[in-house]
Amino acid sequence: MVDYAQIKKDLEGIAVEDHPALVKQKSRDFYWYSPILKSQLDNVTADLVVSPVTEEEVIRTLKVAYAHGAPITPRGGGTGNYGQAMPLSGGIILNMANMNKVKQILPGRVIAETGVIISELDKQTKAHSGQELRFHPSTAQTATIGGFIAGGSGGVGSITWGGLRDLGNILRLRVITMEAEPRILDLTGWDLQKVSHAYGTNGIITEVEMPLAPAYDWVDVLVGYDDFMDAVRFADTLAHSNGLLVKEIAPIAAPAPFEYFTRHKPYLKEGQSVVVIMVAPHSMGPFEALVSRYKGDIRFRSDKVESMKGIPHAYELAWNHTTLRALKIDPSITYLQVQYPAPDHVERVRKTVETFPGELIGHLEFMRFDGSIQCSGLPMVRYTTAERLEEIIRIHEDLGCPIFNPHRYTLEEGGMKQTDVVQLAFKRETDPKGLLNPGKMIAWDNPDFDFKAGKNYLFQGLAAFMEA
Amino acid sequence: MVDYAQIKKDLEGIAVEDHPALVKQKSRDFYWYSPILKSQLDNVTADLVVSPVTEEEVIRTLKVAYAHGAPITPRGGGTGNYGQAMPLSGGIILNMANMNKVKQILPGRVIAETGVIISELDKQTKAHSGQELRFHPSTAQTATIGGFIAGGSGGVGSITWGGLRDLGNILRLRVITMEAEPRILDLTGWDLQKVSHAYGTNGIITEVEMPLAPAYDWVDVLVGYDDFMDAVRFADTLAHSNGLLVKEIAPIAAPAPFEYFTRHKPYLKEGQSVVVIMVAPHSMGPFEALVSRYKGDIRFRSDKVESMKGIPHAYELAWNHTTLRALKIDPSITYLQVQYPAPDHVERVRKTVETFPGELIGHLEFMRFDGSIQCSGLPMVRYTTAERLEEIIRIHEDLGCPIFNPHRYTLEEGGMKQTDVVQLAFKRETDPKGLLNPGKMIAWDNPDFDFKAGKNYLFQGLAAFMEA
Repeated sequence: MVDYAQIKKDLEGIAVEDHPALVKQKSRDFYWYSPILKSQLDNVTADLVVSPVTEEEVIRTLKVAYAHGAPITPRGGGTGNYGQAMPLSGGIILNMANMNKVKQILPGRVIAETGVIISELDKQTKAHSGQELRFHPSTAQTATIGGFIAGGSGGVGSITWGGLRDLGNILRLRVITMEAEPRILDLTGWDLQKVSHAYGTNGIITEVEMPLAPAYDWVDVLVGYDDFMDAVRFADTLAHSNGLLVKEIAPIAAPAPFEYFTRHKPYLKEGQSVVVIMVAPHSMGPFEALVSRYKGDIRFRSDKVESMKGIPHAYELAWNHTTLRALKIDPSITYLQVQYPAPDHVERVRKTVETFPGELIGHLEFMRFDGSIQCSGLPMVRYTTAERLEEIIRIHEDLGCPIFNPHRYTLEEGGMKQTDVVQLAFKRETDPKGLLNPGKMIAWDNPDFDFKAGKNYLFQGLAAFMEA
Repeated sequence: MVDYAQIKKDLEGIAVEDHPALVKQKSRDFYWYSPILKSQLDNVTADLVVSPVTEEEVIRTLKVAYAHGAPITPRGGGTGNYGQAMPLSGGIILNMANMNKVKQILPGRVIAETGVIISELDKQTKAHSGQELRFHPSTAQTATIGGFIAGGSGGVGSITWGGLRDLGNILRLRVITMEAEPRILDLTGWDLQKVSHAYGTNGIITEVEMPLAPAYDWVDVLVGYDDFMDAVRFADTLAHSNGLLVKEIAPIAAPAPFEYFTRHKPYLKEGQSVVVIMVAPHSMGPFEALVSRYKGDIRFRSDKVESMKGIPHAYELAWNHTTLRALKIDPSITYLQVQYPAPDHVERVRKTVETFPGELIGHLEFMRFDGSIQCSGLPMVRYTTAERLEEIIRIHEDLGCPIFNPHRYTLEEGGMKQTDVVQLAFKRETDPKGLLNPGKMIAWDNPDFDFKAGKNYLFQGLAAFMEA
């Protein structure tokens, strides 16, 4: 048994919270997007929340936890959807949100502490020198940069820059190891793959160095189409238009826009699908020429409304926010994450749209992937049973559309369905006791797990919570 | 007979030059890159050079020329390679180089007079707000922005932005028509296609509005490979790397780099091919990681040399400058312009490389084309006869690699081998007497010309010069 009372004493001088309600609040994320994760993770909670404000405090916390054998689960804004920041073995939530200083802004790059809120980071870089992050999640107003790197993949801006996995989209990460004497490592180049999108299972990120792009006063535009596939084809053409600078292209099928985008509803037309777009002001003229040629119906543009007060950013209609807005209106909705590989991504979308009329509501995100334009999908699903959800996944895979399953809390099952040998090897180096975010890396707990057997992994530690 | 003495009087107050040697100097461009154009165009010369400094002077000049029936051929820096700015019927050279004011710099855009030198424009936008043109020709130090738009297609930066033909890469052009009462037209959107890359045959551009990109202190890098195809494969991977910000990627085959890049020679290795690259400073770290994985040999980087004095910019080794440097050393060299359509552009390159050992020296330019990465080629050719050159072109086309023939002075023969109906229709509106840059648009002179007959077009007016 871990002695948390003693840990609390050992951490004197560092902010520690052990009130059960407050600890539980900081032990969750947006796992409830998934009815499956909701039933599995609802009772998960930590024993303590530790909120360091300096790297020294992080190191001291890790040292104490290591000595006591206490699990550590790092947390940023808690905006993940897959239980990334949920402590499946209890223990300590390491709340990084108070390490939020922007340290240096340079041409094309920024150095910041891990816990800065993404929109705040963008605000500072924009004010400093007209720069902003290359891309961000739709949760930019509440997510931290470190949490995005540890638990995210891409977002608003990925149409230009691709994802976090792409060399050059993270420049450096400073990482603390979970050892008797924690080490400080500065990772660059290919080494970044060891720790990005590893859910904090193999090191605690304390500082990030990220590339910046020019900041523009992006114009939010919603273009309506009576037919979803017309919207998709326009989106694809726009994505392929080298000369038009856009930051976001997301076709969203009817009835979602009119039904779920309540603040934009006055501008929308019932029954229409829309393409949610962010356009650089200096591309608006030629953009309008393209919309006109493709017979789009511009329903909304942020540069022409009287006031944006009460109207969310366009990017807060896209990515995971689309599902969030649907869930608010219809709690039976859940979602999937689909990849439609290029170059015939549009045709693949058409097939899946035809296969699930009424059951899936289309939502695509166009992005650059290994230098090619393609789209991913976050279709909304009218959920019936876990079995039917599995079937929908299988049918997608049969149509050549891989699924990244958002109803799984492990790295492998949500991702490539195989061991990430680089991340596993790094965990062996940095977390010999296996105390960092336990239960998220199957390869650590059960190296023999057979991903092809079709059975879901159930982490031992979690069983205790589920029985509770 | 046109009365040029009277024209000179009518233009009093505007700078006019009629000294034959000076007029001849302003009547040529880099047509001599092509042994074929050299023999055809060597005697071409205008009667007068008129150098307006205001739009009013342009209008007055056109009005006078129209009244006298004098041909007008506009000229920027005279850096074209196909005789774009050469007056095939004599007449007036309209030298736009003195209309060179930068009028307004805004976020993402600049408004300038047509005759500003491109590098000067970039210098001003960079100093003003850290911005620069999206792309420019390798002749940026001497070419004008208006000349680039009228006679160019893409260049350094096209790896990110594509070419001038792409919607959004030109925002607005102000154009004067050639009529009894010249009109001022402001063209935007799709209308820009009427006049861009029309060699000034259907209007005189007086003002441009161009989009800007962020300016960085680009690092010039030359990466060596013993095998040209290894260089090509690395270049292709780099071009597909979303997260690495580069402005130029040009693989150039041995022996060209060591033989022809005299100022860089001390850094190069005999027998190696090189990839000429411009990298954003904040992408240098991850770029080095990529080079290392692809076993490239970094021979030169501008951020590590003691002084760049006497060393040209990397972009002045690329595009048409590659051929220029070859010609300085070996006057028997000429070149072609090849397109290698995606997605199997690398395989197409391999086939052409294998087909012409010793006769062609590979030179590729990677760029974005309708949203996909592909490459064009400007292979250097060891010239023997016009017949063999035609044969090389045919073989390329048989291999699925279209040729844009740089040995032709007409728009159609150098381009799509068909009438551009949009540009022709616009010429009917703007130049009813056909006085603008005569002989460059076959469709105007001879609507029945058969592009499939395999015969070259010979402009009547030019015959007089050739007999001279």
